Amino acid sequence: MATVKSLLKGKMNFINKLEDQVRRANSLLCVGLDSDIEKLSGEKDQFVFNKKIIEATHDLVCSYKLNTAFYESTGHLGIIALKKTCDYLREKYPEIPIIIDGKRGDIGNTNREYVQFVFSYLGGDAVTVNPYLGEEAIGPFLDEKDSGIIILCKTSNPGSGEFQNLEIDGEPLYKSVARNVSRKWNKNNNCLLVVGATYPQELKEIRQIVGEDMWFLVPGVGSQGGDLKATLNAGLNKKRKGLIINFSRSIIFAGNPREEAIKLRDEINKHRNMTVG
Amino acid sequence: MATVKSLLKGKMNFINKLEDQVRRANSLLCVGLDSDIEKLSGEKDQFVFNKKIIEATHDLVCSYKLNTAFYESTGHLGIIALKKTCDYLREKYPEIPIIIDGKRGDIGNTNREYVQFVFSYLGGDAVTVNPYLGEEAIGPFLDEKDSGIIILCKTSNPGSGEFQNLEIDGEPLYKSVARNVSRKWNKNNNCLLVVGATYPQELKEIRQIVGEDMWFLVPGVGSQGGDLKATLNAGLNKKRKGLIINFSRSIIFAGNPREEAIKLRDEINKHRNMTVG
Repeated sequence: MATVKSLLKGKMNFINKLEDQVRRANSLLCVGLDSDIEKLSGEKDQFVFNKKIIEATHDLVCSYKLNTAFYESTGHLGIIALKKTCDYLREKYPEIPIIIDGKRGDIGNTNREYVQFVFSYLGGDAVTVNPYLGEEAIGPFLDEKDSGIIILCKTSNPGSGEFQNLEIDGEPLYKSVARNVSRKWNKNNNCLLVVGATYPQELKEIRQIVGEDMWFLVPGVGSQGGDLKATLNAGLNKKRKGLIINFSRSIIFAGNPREEAIKLRDEINKHRNMTVG
Repeated sequence: MATVKSLLKGKMNFINKLEDQVRRANSLLCVGLDSDIEKLSGEKDQFVFNKKIIEATHDLVCSYKLNTAFYESTGHLGIIALKKTCDYLREKYPEIPIIIDGKRGDIGNTNREYVQFVFSYLGGDAVTVNPYLGEEAIGPFLDEKDSGIIILCKTSNPGSGEFQNLEIDGEPLYKSVARNVSRKWNKNNNCLLVVGATYPQELKEIRQIVGEDMWFLVPGVGSQGGDLKATLNAGLNKKRKGLIINFSRSIIFAGNPREEAIKLRDEINKHRNMTVG
């Protein structure tokens, strides 16, 4: 368990921090603060909106995820709201991991700048990155050994197969990504994968490739239509963990976000507690 | 040629705007305003630095490219400097295309937010995107028919082959990307490709796949070591155009950025004017 001292002393290893919070909250639920300014009924400030969601859900989650797109769309004011949200979380709930969902990826020299943005300016604990440029380019992210580096593998969107499913020596590209990340990129034990809940069969195959220890960030259950039970059966490891199940719109824009989060956390736990079917 | 009226009336088609400016400046040179705050000797404000570079080079370039990473690294203040630079360019030199180099890419719903950031908030003319999620996800970018959508194909970094060179039916992945973009994604004739100058043979093959009309954004000649002559021989189309040759650090941090830009523009034009060898 993380002590306050260890939390204050500096950054804790992401995977440890995540596993501590999973135990503490007994939850694999991640709330995605995709606080689209056009959908914030009555509220004009993304930070104020986020604070309400955080106060309503902080004891129910294993992590929060902030997708940069929903803040960049409102320019520098959105970036300020994003930073204020991260600052608030770090001060009030330093035990809860913050995932910055930016899907960044550039050449090495340039990725160092994104590292600054995500880990110094925002103070995030983890970031999503795109694998297309390869390990050598992603190096500045991977070198952040106490941060979580979450690599896109099989994404949740309907058209993700266009390149991700192309066959290389009889195997789809996403399996090459999973294998390379697991065998080569993960020298600091800080890699995770993004696998969409809309593809449970692929999730199962990826779990077989990377083994028991790697965590996956799994979007696509709520508004995108992925099946929760199938997702959990396919991706949970033997400890009935290993999946960060993200819900964004379906929680934050619900009539009662807390009730929705409790319902989803409990539904996830119900399946975790079942014998594997 | 674009009239002031057409420029004021609204957004001009990116490819037309680019080709007009190529003619006007007789230049394929793009200056990359990678204004890394740690390298701005004496100058603390990225916008003030950029303004000096723009004033020194505006008659020599076919476009300016702004990589978002170098602005995000300084947080909201960087985003303000980025916006001020775009505003300045649009007001003072509305004929020069602005490329936002963000290498973004998410699911469709989320890409709509990035479209807001790049084209509404910043007022850019073009954006770089990552193809990994496929055409269906990139749709909101591709639908911006008057904007340039510049898709990563074969990137300039030494390790770009890890996935981009994996063979699919005997052909590397980057060729699948080039073919799909050229045959399917380019319905609005607004697609370009990123091909690194460090891979002239691959550049030649990609030109053969996509034909004469598609423009490429080519980084990697200056500090990254790509050979200018080999790049031009490999990638120019029959009209001796079709390449946006980007230089960032080697111009903006030169003792005399204007002299360096003149030298590079002229060197590019020397090769353009030679018979194909």
